[in-house]
Amino acid sequence: MKITKTTYSKLANTDFDNLSFGKSFSDHMFTANFKDGEWHNEEIIPYGPISVSPSTHVFHYGQAIFEGMKAYKNKEGKILLFRPLDNLKRLNTSAERLCMPTIDEDLFMSGLTELLRVDSDWIPRSDEKSLYIRPFMIADSEYIRATPSSSYRFMIITSPTASYYKGETKLKIEEKFARSIEGGTGFAKAAGNYAAAFAPTKYAQNDGYTQVIWTDAKNHEYIEESGTMNIMFRINDTLVTPKLSDSILGGITRNSVLAIAKQKGIDVEERKISVKEIVEAHKNNTLKEAFGVGTAVTLNPIDKITFRDLDIHIEKQTPNSYGQLLKKELLSIQYGKTEDIFGWTMEL
Amino acid sequence: MKITKTTYSKLANTDFDNLSFGKSFSDHMFTANFKDGEWHNEEIIPYGPISVSPSTHVFHYGQAIFEGMKAYKNKEGKILLFRPLDNLKRLNTSAERLCMPTIDEDLFMSGLTELLRVDSDWIPRSDEKSLYIRPFMIADSEYIRATPSSSYRFMIITSPTASYYKGETKLKIEEKFARSIEGGTGFAKAAGNYAAAFAPTKYAQNDGYTQVIWTDAKNHEYIEESGTMNIMFRINDTLVTPKLSDSILGGITRNSVLAIAKQKGIDVEERKISVKEIVEAHKNNTLKEAFGVGTAVTLNPIDKITFRDLDIHIEKQTPNSYGQLLKKELLSIQYGKTEDIFGWTMEL
Repeated sequence: MKITKTTYSKLANTDFDNLSFGKSFSDHMFTANFKDGEWHNEEIIPYGPISVSPSTHVFHYGQAIFEGMKAYKNKEGKILLFRPLDNLKRLNTSAERLCMPTIDEDLFMSGLTELLRVDSDWIPRSDEKSLYIRPFMIADSEYIRATPSSSYRFMIITSPTASYYKGETKLKIEEKFARSIEGGTGFAKAAGNYAAAFAPTKYAQNDGYTQVIWTDAKNHEYIEESGTMNIMFRINDTLVTPKLSDSILGGITRNSVLAIAKQKGIDVEERKISVKEIVEAHKNNTLKEAFGVGTAVTLNPIDKITFRDLDIHIEKQTPNSYGQLLKKELLSIQYGKTEDIFGWTMEL
Repeated sequence: MKITKTTYSKLANTDFDNLSFGKSFSDHMFTANFKDGEWHNEEIIPYGPISVSPSTHVFHYGQAIFEGMKAYKNKEGKILLFRPLDNLKRLNTSAERLCMPTIDEDLFMSGLTELLRVDSDWIPRSDEKSLYIRPFMIADSEYIRATPSSSYRFMIITSPTASYYKGETKLKIEEKFARSIEGGTGFAKAAGNYAAAFAPTKYAQNDGYTQVIWTDAKNHEYIEESGTMNIMFRINDTLVTPKLSDSILGGITRNSVLAIAKQKGIDVEERKISVKEIVEAHKNNTLKEAFGVGTAVTLNPIDKITFRDLDIHIEKQTPNSYGQLLKKELLSIQYGKTEDIFGWTMEL
């Protein structure tokens, strides 16, 4: 693979003690082009602007998908990846739904690993930091006809990161706006899904909430997901989370947390969860925990859920809460501090 | 407004007799930037590549909206615009849903009219051609956090065009995939809506159809729209079209065709239309016409509609068909050949 290194590293000028999610980028990026049915021009170049036509397809018809993943350093300074092939699998699922080309394992893993080797100094050696990795694909044909693009660009950029959410998490159960529907694109990491969520989220934020909890678009009766997180509840001693569907993103953190819970002997249920059930669990004091899970947030306790006029306050998590136990175990695996019996981590 | 003219015009090298929709672009483009709550840097520059960061917001979170409109030349060679303020109104409706800034009339109209003056030679003087105008807005902040962008770019590019669809139009009534839902973004001209439609459309095209007819996402019972067109039926002597909703784009051509029909004394109904009703109208021979309407296609007769195993063949339109009468009248107004009693056209 062709590698062109930067002549000026931004590393010394990056304040690793005050990282704001997704604002600092490492020195290099991976890029490849899809044309005539094949991927070409795989290379690593200095992170920097790209030149695109104003008729570039993605600006008009929105074929754009992405992934979110992280690289960690263990205490020996070795680079660890967490389930990268699951990200690739989801990227390809997204690609098919958006009528975009898929990417094979060789291309994805060689681009990813070469990039991390070149920018290894950008992966913080800290238990609370990591390098956020953003693979993404955009349609870049230069015509404005509403048909799929004939060419695409795949890139990987990376950004050193600390935690994502700050402060209390107060969620509003959304009953007016919809994020996705059966037969739609909700299960894909499609750019348009996020754009569609911004206005409803902003309206909720104007009312003092952090994010919304999306409910099914048909009747707003069942809980789907929240912001950039899948959502989980502890009802009595069972961990319950919405079953995946066309309209819910299949989170890799979600899947990992469920696997760890099962391995620890916690009863896990993936099924439909109605808003009514959560309200009732709150009223009879069986709703013990609620948290969001996702690559960016890892595991984020929820402090309050509001349904219409009802504020459901959730108790602060303790070290023995499911949330804290699961988060600690997940991070221990990700940072290579505990044995990975699941085979999720990949050392570079 | 600052105007920088190209030093090399592509005009002489553009084959106006063989235009492919959306592939040729005129010499100039209008561009403006939104930052710190205001629009800045309005200018006209040569059409050409723009430089953007790989972390540019639109690549990741899909805030992108557009409009489609046309400029025509009348027989005196004067430039005519058709309902441009309705396009602006819809652009701003889209902007609000996608959490993007709105654009005021001065900015929009001055950019549009100056651009058309500079590129007036690109507007074909022909009854069958026009200059397709593509105003669009993209989010261009350089961070990958899933929040609305803090800066935006608005541009207008133009493309000389002839007709859009070629050949017969065979539509499949879609019952698996969904385009939009109540509470979603279907009424907005959002880039993500189109990306979501490509795969289902491609599956239909693989089976020999031209496009799909979208049905409501809840039960796939009611007809919504088709591809890049609103859809209209003549049942007996009444012109019926789906009533606008959250999940249907409010076409300006749709609105214009309905207004012309009313003015001509045709009974018009905007209401829910079930698939069942169309099937029954076909069976009892009261389904006399079906056509799509939109800026790109103007008015496009539908030859066949397939619902499951049933092929509904629609008779070829004659000069006395509603479709042909309405299309002729609309084009006469757009090209300035008949008196515009509606006040839709704007002479530059």
